[in-house]
Amino acid sequence: MTTAADAPLPASRSAASETLADLSEGAVLGRIFPRLPTATAQLLGPGDDAAVISAPDGRFVVTTDMMIQGPDFRLAWSTPHDLGWKAAATNLSDVAAMGARPTALVVAIAAPPSTPVSVLEGIADGLRDCCEALAPGCGVVGGDLSASDALTLAVTAFGDLEGRSPVLRSGARPGDTVALAGRLGDAGIGLELLFRLGVDADGVPDFDRSNTLKLTHPSEVAAQLTPVPPIDSGPLAALAGATAMLDVSDGLAIDAGRIARASGVGIDFDSACLGERIEVALGGGEDHGLLATFPPDIVLPPGFRRLGTVVAASASIVAGTITLDGAPHDQVGWDPYRGWDGAAG
Amino acid sequence: MTTAADAPLPASRSAASETLADLSEGAVLGRIFPRLPTATAQLLGPGDDAAVISAPDGRFVVTTDMMIQGPDFRLAWSTPHDLGWKAAATNLSDVAAMGARPTALVVAIAAPPSTPVSVLEGIADGLRDCCEALAPGCGVVGGDLSASDALTLAVTAFGDLEGRSPVLRSGARPGDTVALAGRLGDAGIGLELLFRLGVDADGVPDFDRSNTLKLTHPSEVAAQLTPVPPIDSGPLAALAGATAMLDVSDGLAIDAGRIARASGVGIDFDSACLGERIEVALGGGEDHGLLATFPPDIVLPPGFRRLGTVVAASASIVAGTITLDGAPHDQVGWDPYRGWDGAAG
Repeated sequence: MTTAADAPLPASRSAASETLADLSEGAVLGRIFPRLPTATAQLLGPGDDAAVISAPDGRFVVTTDMMIQGPDFRLAWSTPHDLGWKAAATNLSDVAAMGARPTALVVAIAAPPSTPVSVLEGIADGLRDCCEALAPGCGVVGGDLSASDALTLAVTAFGDLEGRSPVLRSGARPGDTVALAGRLGDAGIGLELLFRLGVDADGVPDFDRSNTLKLTHPSEVAAQLTPVPPIDSGPLAALAGATAMLDVSDGLAIDAGRIARASGVGIDFDSACLGERIEVALGGGEDHGLLATFPPDIVLPPGFRRLGTVVAASASIVAGTITLDGAPHDQVGWDPYRGWDGAAG
Repeated sequence: MTTAADAPLPASRSAASETLADLSEGAVLGRIFPRLPTATAQLLGPGDDAAVISAPDGRFVVTTDMMIQGPDFRLAWSTPHDLGWKAAATNLSDVAAMGARPTALVVAIAAPPSTPVSVLEGIADGLRDCCEALAPGCGVVGGDLSASDALTLAVTAFGDLEGRSPVLRSGARPGDTVALAGRLGDAGIGLELLFRLGVDADGVPDFDRSNTLKLTHPSEVAAQLTPVPPIDSGPLAALAGATAMLDVSDGLAIDAGRIARASGVGIDFDSACLGERIEVALGGGEDHGLLATFPPDIVLPPGFRRLGTVVAASASIVAGTITLDGAPHDQVGWDPYRGWDGAAG
């Protein structure tokens, strides 16, 4: 793990034009670490070979996710602050989907040597602001800096189950209520808008046009670039007795199919609960809401709304089947090796 | 976190020619996961939004490190198995340097869609073989797959302090013995050999020439490509009362300077203990030995050998100063944003 133990104090000279190649690794870290949030669970933070984190109930939850310029984001669309925010938000959401409270992150960043230091400072600010907004007390306990051609963020997030059992994908039972906390379809619409209208005449992502979109469609673009997953709803769902839960990242139908397959059941969505844009609600990815199943007799915890019902597998309903008002629905979604055309920008 | 919950069984058809783009993400994961080692500390493994790991003493150690094709490795020199091995070994070493026993890894891999699936299988085999050889019981509990132009491995490793205090960099005291477990300088020589003789006439990394080097200089090339850090020596040093410890990744002089600065002392190396290639011993990076300081009156634990002595800071010895037989020594080492020429290969 890279450390800032020997970092000089931040320089006061023209920060805006400085690149990573202008500074030593220690100096770059000295500029980044003061901007990062401190985790209350941190027993030993940055500055040694590894960090030490508190795990009061004798277990910890861990998830990891990598974001890469090109397939996962475009610098013409996302600010550095956006990137830091989204890298934190998506990982916090995976922790929350276990019913855990996020406690800490480690963040590895690779960037071209020509990258302005201010880009890394912006990423750090985004990580901090997301943690403070969505998971107060969660902080960055360590990281790593590398050189690369494409800006790359690898975040690993930790959580505390606070004595509870983790909420798996496999516990849904026939009759359970299927419910969602968070948004549905907006992130997919935002991405479609960016690819259609946030590009120049050659289809290249364009800074000015995406800024126009941010004014004309602020909600959808923000849902894609700076998602606000309902982190608190994860532990609340666990406390309320959720039988299964996951983070909706690849689209409602695909992710519901994962719960259904793991649980050996089917899931039937009620079209009246999916809004006016049903295909978008079922197929749009990256919403990072929490999809959960609850025993039919309980009151849904705050933030959750009913979308459908868990149904028993049968001769006509293979385990994993998703239906809409009882009729079959094809699942389509994102695949990392098929969904990327190789462009960056 | 990406999961293999819905992965079909591995296909039996012509595996060698299949690329990542030929298979779904789930199918790729279905090929990789069975090759990975299971962690004894794993309470919930791959297949959900996050894993759950045991932390019996109420704390866990965490470190993260990213390896990228180009600045960190060349595919003409390293096999996929080598890459998996080194990614595990360098992270295990950071855990051991805290005095902890490695328990688990999470691994995020990004690769071009044209990458043969066999490359990822080789990486998985290298991760497994390294864990089984150096840290039995440590396993891979989760991961993530992404698309990218450059093959990228981001590993996060966890460790168990087993009730002990972590061994920091800041505890060295004047009079302490400075000692090393592991090799010294060989990895640097191996890298120098590869850059000088493992390239074609244009200086491009060359598969055949590096294979010749692996025959003529097996020890040095292996030290660079497949390091075998003394993982067991970390907990042994902690039990023996080590006052400070770190993983030697950037070179002995630089890394000793980190202990010295953090501890407010100087470190004097005894040239008679550094072998015949003193500058290589002091300057070569990536050996991943464990450098530790011990009270002067104790018997060094197995695997450690004396290299020098901790000296008090004074008017002439600023804290952090490294000396050789009492004379000043300049520190030179690797910087990720200055040490890479932009080439991959």
